[in-house]
Amino acid sequence: MNKKIVIVGLGLIGGSLAKAFQKYSECQIAGIDRDPDVLKAALACGAIDKIGGDADIREADVLYLCLYPQADIDFVASHAHLIPPDCVVTDTCGIKSEICAHLPRIAQEHGFLFAGGHPMAGKEKSGFAASDADLFLDASYILVPCGAPQRAVDLLKAIAVELRFGGTVETTPEKHDRMIAFTSQLPHVLACAYVMSPCCPEHNGFSAGSYRDVSRVANINEQLWAELFIDNREALVGELDTLITNITKIKNAVSKNDAEALRILLRRGRQIKEMLGE
Amino acid sequence: MNKKIVIVGLGLIGGSLAKAFQKYSECQIAGIDRDPDVLKAALACGAIDKIGGDADIREADVLYLCLYPQADIDFVASHAHLIPPDCVVTDTCGIKSEICAHLPRIAQEHGFLFAGGHPMAGKEKSGFAASDADLFLDASYILVPCGAPQRAVDLLKAIAVELRFGGTVETTPEKHDRMIAFTSQLPHVLACAYVMSPCCPEHNGFSAGSYRDVSRVANINEQLWAELFIDNREALVGELDTLITNITKIKNAVSKNDAEALRILLRRGRQIKEMLGE
Repeated sequence: MNKKIVIVGLGLIGGSLAKAFQKYSECQIAGIDRDPDVLKAALACGAIDKIGGDADIREADVLYLCLYPQADIDFVASHAHLIPPDCVVTDTCGIKSEICAHLPRIAQEHGFLFAGGHPMAGKEKSGFAASDADLFLDASYILVPCGAPQRAVDLLKAIAVELRFGGTVETTPEKHDRMIAFTSQLPHVLACAYVMSPCCPEHNGFSAGSYRDVSRVANINEQLWAELFIDNREALVGELDTLITNITKIKNAVSKNDAEALRILLRRGRQIKEMLGE
Repeated sequence: MNKKIVIVGLGLIGGSLAKAFQKYSECQIAGIDRDPDVLKAALACGAIDKIGGDADIREADVLYLCLYPQADIDFVASHAHLIPPDCVVTDTCGIKSEICAHLPRIAQEHGFLFAGGHPMAGKEKSGFAASDADLFLDASYILVPCGAPQRAVDLLKAIAVELRFGGTVETTPEKHDRMIAFTSQLPHVLACAYVMSPCCPEHNGFSAGSYRDVSRVANINEQLWAELFIDNREALVGELDTLITNITKIKNAVSKNDAEALRILLRRGRQIKEMLGE
């Protein structure tokens, strides 16, 4: 495929998208970033073909928003007059209700197309330096069409196949945010809460894979995640309440020396994993 | 090294120890297991040199206990009269206070040596079929000498080096159990509590590495872990209380839309990981 792509924000996700386009497609990539050093680096390593400007936005076939949620909304609001009628604008945010409350409306007002997107891949490091052409290999790409015409959704799907995503899922903003509260936000809260134990600084020599896995994403970008958590407050607080309730059930069984109740609770964990074939 | 080794219990840990001895040492391995099919399989694949009996125990240089905690204690109690004076008996249990309350005393009464041990490696599968000669590669081997003479500890360390463990740590039963409550038991409780969310069965397409990492060990052996949790009740309940408190702090900041408090909490997570160089 040979399209004109504009990527706004060359952090971990935007940088990785740019590199994936260069590695796996024939598209031309214009990159926009507020940091001139990142733009220079992206150009020098071939992640982008050019530094993007107003002219590139005017000619874009697809525009990927890879900033924080509010910054994505602000960028579209201030550049909407430049975006051409057939351009597909999409985002890569970790939550959708906030984005989808604003961008479909702005798109409709200005005549371009908007469909939300969320590539389900990440790393415990952020920034362009951590970006990787193969970050999305086999990852799921969630599409949140928000009423966008099918041709916009189909184009984003075709690009996802070309960039070697593992598959796509279409859903609503509400279901997306509810699921993400569980699959992604909860593990990040947990990782941070976990490493706050007074035992943590002494773990070396006493730990193995379980410690490594639970603590991995504690290496968090607090600016980004604080915004994502608060934008998804209701779903996240609901999941946290459920989790605290379930931890407390197990704790109470241990506390009371109730081996039978404990086995029943742990067996449920095992059975859920088995049912999922994991 | 060329020693006579008896391994009692050829599950994941005992089976992996047997295979590691065969791959990396010149020791002769006699295996004991209540399941004749496991013994046959272990013999057939060369994990053990022979099926162990009383005569092997009478000649053992080192005896590894790889059963559940109470079963280890029962085995030693009922076979103590067979264990020769210079034999080093060690276990591989995930908790130490219970084991160390009994086995050093039995050893002293019968004139053999006991030092506790805990190879910090595992898998989300159990049983001989899951055992692997390289399970312990680069893993930490925790030694809990409980007053054993230095020569017993040194022998176990020398074996650990030969079997390609990554390093050894010496500690007390109390510190071992306190650290393990954090590094190993807590992640297992968390994994089970996590997958109990009503969202879990629908995670496919919405999840990536964070889900996989937190949920991995929910595939738990509930018989073994219920015993380990209850044997370490005090330390584990303490860690669970700490964790619930810290999750609740983050939840409250999200609940109240308090982005600044939330960033401060998340930053602590990141700073702890950074301090640890992880």
